[in-house]
Amino acid sequence: MIDQAQQFASDNYAGICPEAWNAMAEANSGSATAYGDDDWTQRASDAFRTLFGTECEVFFAFNGTAANSLALASLGQSYHSVICSSSAHVETDECGAPEFFSNGSKLLVAQTAGGKLTPEAVRGLATSRSDIHFPKPRVVTITQPTETGQVYSVAEVRALSATCRELGLRLHMDGARFAHACATLGCSPAEITWQAGVDVLCFGGTKNGMAVGEAVLFFEPTLAEDFDYRCKQAGQLASKMRFLSAPWVGLLESGAWLRNAEHGNDCAQRVAAAVAGLPGIELMFPVEANAVFLRAPEPVLEALRARGWRFYTFIGGGARFMFAWDADVARVDALARDVREAALAALVEA
Amino acid sequence: MIDQAQQFASDNYAGICPEAWNAMAEANSGSATAYGDDDWTQRASDAFRTLFGTECEVFFAFNGTAANSLALASLGQSYHSVICSSSAHVETDECGAPEFFSNGSKLLVAQTAGGKLTPEAVRGLATSRSDIHFPKPRVVTITQPTETGQVYSVAEVRALSATCRELGLRLHMDGARFAHACATLGCSPAEITWQAGVDVLCFGGTKNGMAVGEAVLFFEPTLAEDFDYRCKQAGQLASKMRFLSAPWVGLLESGAWLRNAEHGNDCAQRVAAAVAGLPGIELMFPVEANAVFLRAPEPVLEALRARGWRFYTFIGGGARFMFAWDADVARVDALARDVREAALAALVEA
Amino acid sequence: MIDQAQQFASDNYAGICPEAWNAMAEANSGSATAYGDDDWTQRASDAFRTLFGTECEVFFAFNGTAANSLALASLGQSYHSVICSSSAHVETDECGAPEFFSNGSKLLVAQTAGGKLTPEAVRGLATSRSDIHFPKPRVVTITQPTETGQVYSVAEVRALSATCRELGLRLHMDGARFAHACATLGCSPAEITWQAGVDVLCFGGTKNGMAVGEAVLFFEPTLAEDFDYRCKQAGQLASKMRFLSAPWVGLLESGAWLRNAEHGNDCAQRVAAAVAGLPGIELMFPVEANAVFLRAPEPVLEALRARGWRFYTFIGGGARFMFAWDADVARVDALARDVREAALAALVEA
Amino acid sequence: MIDQAQQFASDNYAGICPEAWNAMAEANSGSATAYGDDDWTQRASDAFRTLFGTECEVFFAFNGTAANSLALASLGQSYHSVICSSSAHVETDECGAPEFFSNGSKLLVAQTAGGKLTPEAVRGLATSRSDIHFPKPRVVTITQPTETGQVYSVAEVRALSATCRELGLRLHMDGARFAHACATLGCSPAEITWQAGVDVLCFGGTKNGMAVGEAVLFFEPTLAEDFDYRCKQAGQLASKMRFLSAPWVGLLESGAWLRNAEHGNDCAQRVAAAVAGLPGIELMFPVEANAVFLRAPEPVLEALRARGWRFYTFIGGGARFMFAWDADVARVDALARDVREAALAALVEA
Repeated sequence: MIDQAQQFASDNYAGICPEAWNAMAEANSGSATAYGDDDWTQRASDAFRTLFGTECEVFFAFNGTAANSLALASLGQSYHSVICSSSAHVETDECGAPEFFSNGSKLLVAQTAGGKLTPEAVRGLATSRSDIHFPKPRVVTITQPTETGQVYSVAEVRALSATCRELGLRLHMDGARFAHACATLGCSPAEITWQAGVDVLCFGGTKNGMAVGEAVLFFEPTLAEDFDYRCKQAGQLASKMRFLSAPWVGLLESGAWLRNAEHGNDCAQRVAAAVAGLPGIELMFPVEANAVFLRAPEPVLEALRARGWRFYTFIGGGARFMFAWDADVARVDALARDVREAALAALVEA
Repeated sequence: MIDQAQQFASDNYAGICPEAWNAMAEANSGSATAYGDDDWTQRASDAFRTLFGTECEVFFAFNGTAANSLALASLGQSYHSVICSSSAHVETDECGAPEFFSNGSKLLVAQTAGGKLTPEAVRGLATSRSDIHFPKPRVVTITQPTETGQVYSVAEVRALSATCRELGLRLHMDGARFAHACATLGCSPAEITWQAGVDVLCFGGTKNGMAVGEAVLFFEPTLAEDFDYRCKQAGQLASKMRFLSAPWVGLLESGAWLRNAEHGNDCAQRVAAAVAGLPGIELMFPVEANAVFLRAPEPVLEALRARGWRFYTFIGGGARFMFAWDADVARVDALARDVREAALAALVEA
Repeated sequence: MIDQAQQFASDNYAGICPEAWNAMAEANSGSATAYGDDDWTQRASDAFRTLFGTECEVFFAFNGTAANSLALASLGQSYHSVICSSSAHVETDECGAPEFFSNGSKLLVAQTAGGKLTPEAVRGLATSRSDIHFPKPRVVTITQPTETGQVYSVAEVRALSATCRELGLRLHMDGARFAHACATLGCSPAEITWQAGVDVLCFGGTKNGMAVGEAVLFFEPTLAEDFDYRCKQAGQLASKMRFLSAPWVGLLESGAWLRNAEHGNDCAQRVAAAVAGLPGIELMFPVEANAVFLRAPEPVLEALRARGWRFYTFIGGGARFMFAWDADVARVDALARDVREAALAALVEA
Repeated sequence: MIDQAQQFASDNYAGICPEAWNAMAEANSGSATAYGDDDWTQRASDAFRTLFGTECEVFFAFNGTAANSLALASLGQSYHSVICSSSAHVETDECGAPEFFSNGSKLLVAQTAGGKLTPEAVRGLATSRSDIHFPKPRVVTITQPTETGQVYSVAEVRALSATCRELGLRLHMDGARFAHACATLGCSPAEITWQAGVDVLCFGGTKNGMAVGEAVLFFEPTLAEDFDYRCKQAGQLASKMRFLSAPWVGLLESGAWLRNAEHGNDCAQRVAAAVAGLPGIELMFPVEANAVFLRAPEPVLEALRARGWRFYTFIGGGARFMFAWDADVARVDALARDVREAALAALVEA
């Protein structure tokens, strides 16, 4: 158990939310058919179809690394490439999983602001080479919201998908924190995904309040052909599937999926507002989801650490704070206060 | 939810046992560091080391397909082969996962009685080819107990490992129901694994009462080098790891891991004893774990189905009944009674 | 250099035939564009299209292992399976290459007579499992002629392809000695391939008189999509491609491809006729191509070895003789004489 | 056949040199054991050992893509990474082959001048991450000479290998034009490879005057364990191996390997000297091997094309000329003259 004060380092540090937990508890009575042929899995799949207002194909994987990698592998072959941002999680933090699952697909990386791809960046990478000595671009993946908390607008996704269609590329959305994007945009999940031209979405459950598990949604059913075999072969088919699907029932049917995300977003806004205009303190990225990236003088960061706060740090004096579904507002405010005090103290000393 | 009467089709149909559940509940308070750097994971790993009486390296994977495939892949290269029984789960029911994780290792299959490999079978396959046109044997995998419920004795495992050492092969144990083997043998986990020459064990949690999760134990630490990277790349690293490790704490520290297995084994023995000597009924395999395979005339199987019993069937009139940690003894006895009645009724009609 | 007497051990022991050599010599004047964008490659591709009377897509790979593995990989995904005979070269002598190139496709093996698959065998394997725990059958591969020299008739291939179509399977032909089958059947290459329902053919050049190289012919162009990328990524794109394609021009335009095969077949027939009816000598397989498999008492085989003959031996007293494009008829007759003498001598001694 | 004038676009456009051709012709008499168990292959391997003055392990692959990818794959696992220059051929022109052969190893790319890695660049990439979410660096690959014709000095390679040893990395040398580097340095092959700390060298034959084929040399024999199986499984074992090995005998025993390279280098120097100081013309890179990269105004490039010269062009007005073993000195001088004339003409018009 770590100190509560440390909990803003990652939204993976949070536990299971009550709605997910209660669904697991309810699922844990009696027997159920294995491998997804059970009522809970049916109900979870239906809940996704209802939420997205379309007959999508739904699969459940254990984690985001696998969900993204399986989805990307299904959209191309080993000699195809995947266009992504240089800060995309698939590029920076999945230990080569996309390359492993696809048996060698190369990631083509665009330098981007805040991790957001643009139609121009996609076009540039997709058209820079057309000889067989370089992997043929076939898929674009965007993270919504990005790893630094930027949210693509519906118009931006539409523009990207239009470019993809023109260039014969598929569009994949890594939605590890998809709910947070929906909360920010205030739009329906449908609007920002299939209605905007997204082919496949990985909807993150872990950061949304579950113990484990992500959902892969194919909006074009033909793309999902034999995807169940792919999951099985790759070690991503749960035998007691109900414990992977029931939490989704809890999250989706209760609306907790959105409330949890809104809470995280609100906490981030709270901190952002509190530190606005502080001397020497700067937001490294606009706060559009549940993350706050602060640039601050080293003495300020030192002072925060001294008060027990834990956070990821980056080159150049950056500090990342992530707010989970269970972030304690009093602690959030305490953090904001400590930033303010440390900033002012640093000013005096300087 | 399926009818309780159906629950003997598979031990994957059972839920989470109280000891595992309570540990998860306890783990679900407050925050914890992600990716296994938490107290629960440390405690679970230590519990394994205590149980096995050795400083083994412990990793947690989501399911048995992945655990086995990752372990096998770590013991060889793509151009090596894996010797297994023709009824081994890795050969028959993992959709090519061992081949996928290893990037192409071939399984060399021995026809065996009850799924048990012998030193002779291993030697035969390992020495039949020694040219570069055929994958070089490098690993032997045995399932303990086998898929049909046979248990390797300590002497048998020792004999196999001696042959492996002589031939330069590693020995892997697929212990999807490892606890059941320990319960049958009455030996310590150490005796039947590393003390008998096993290099790597996949210890099954799911069939032992957990929601999800298997443990991979390397008894020779050098074999575990960078295995954590392997797991991560293959999508088998849980971010909220505590929910994968805490149930192990619940199972291991309480002794439930063994009690659960003993209960399943006892139920199987109960049925085996009750049907012994029934006309037309035959045990297809000795009952040494939690499975009973009956050979019975089709009218008997029909009669059982008509009474609501569900079971896997096989060519030649076989029926498999599996008894989970939560098998209801009254229902078990009801099954035995129904088999008896159906057998006698069939006799009368014949 | 090995003794000429040894040359019947394998048709891989032969050199380059004059027609192939001369084309290489001619190609070796001046410069040519690399990677297949040259006149020789165009001309070789056109020669294949003319020979097969159809607009097939033609690719050149370095050897049969790669050609077959690339072709099979292009017809399925890693979680699909390939149905083949138990004596298929892809199963027995390619060191797991099909599994490697496909990233894990499983070979489903049928026990067959003389290596020939039947519609029944295909149907049996293709329909035995339909759950996601076992790789989904997607491709059937047949070797024409088989590894033991049996030739599929046009009717047999048609029957196989009809079954494939019914079951949603693709049909691949491993034609390492394809020319020999054409010589035996007396049919056009078209009749025994695309007109009979074959989707992809690997046409062997090495055993047909080349130094190195096989051709992969896709009769349905859509199946060939991006196959050039697949070849490149797998290390099968020759930079100085003309030296891989020019020999084909030499073989195909001159008719040597067929003459070479006819010569090998004739030699095999010559031996088969000479040993017919000899006491204790038995043909293990009907002689339909350029191989003769003799079953003979060990003393006979010993006597042959003592006279300097080299051949592959098999369990149960089998000896394989392969006759290449350059087999010396006098030596072939000498072999036949020695078999006869050894057989009679053994008879006397017995 | 392309116009001779075009031959400076690539050294892959050249044919087979007489020494290689004659060895092939000689090898093409009679039969020889297949798969490398022949005298020519033994002799070629020995010639490498003599040339390098050490008992290295020698393997023959069909092309550079495969040779490099197999070598890199043998030095790490899928979850390891390979450090290379951003202009390394393995990164830019092998269609993801290194990722394919290794089943997912990531290439970590350093921005470099002229494609040369430095100890600092290696250290930077090797130490930037040490968590399991990113592939663990295990191998460094350098191209000698680089893709733009820069040659690493012995001291530079030594400095790199020292850094590699310190950081637990293996050092691989892509020697597609290795002979050219030796010619430039005037050192022995041993000095610039194993004596300088290189673990594995891919020695290019194609650009050195062969039809097809590269050699892979392991200077530390334990690294070569089972590499023959790796080659076989990956479709890189030639059945008629003598035709891959004999040309090496021709090149190495005659000294043509070095003469061919010296000729290419000399032609490049000839052009470089001729264009030095021309107005508007600039050498993009120092000329240290057989390539000349010119930066020239577009009208100059246009004029050259109008006169029939063909060359690869690059962003910013670059033109690449490559001089093969058979470059015609008269044509080389003609090219130099035309560059001069075009440059002066452009000056007048401006």
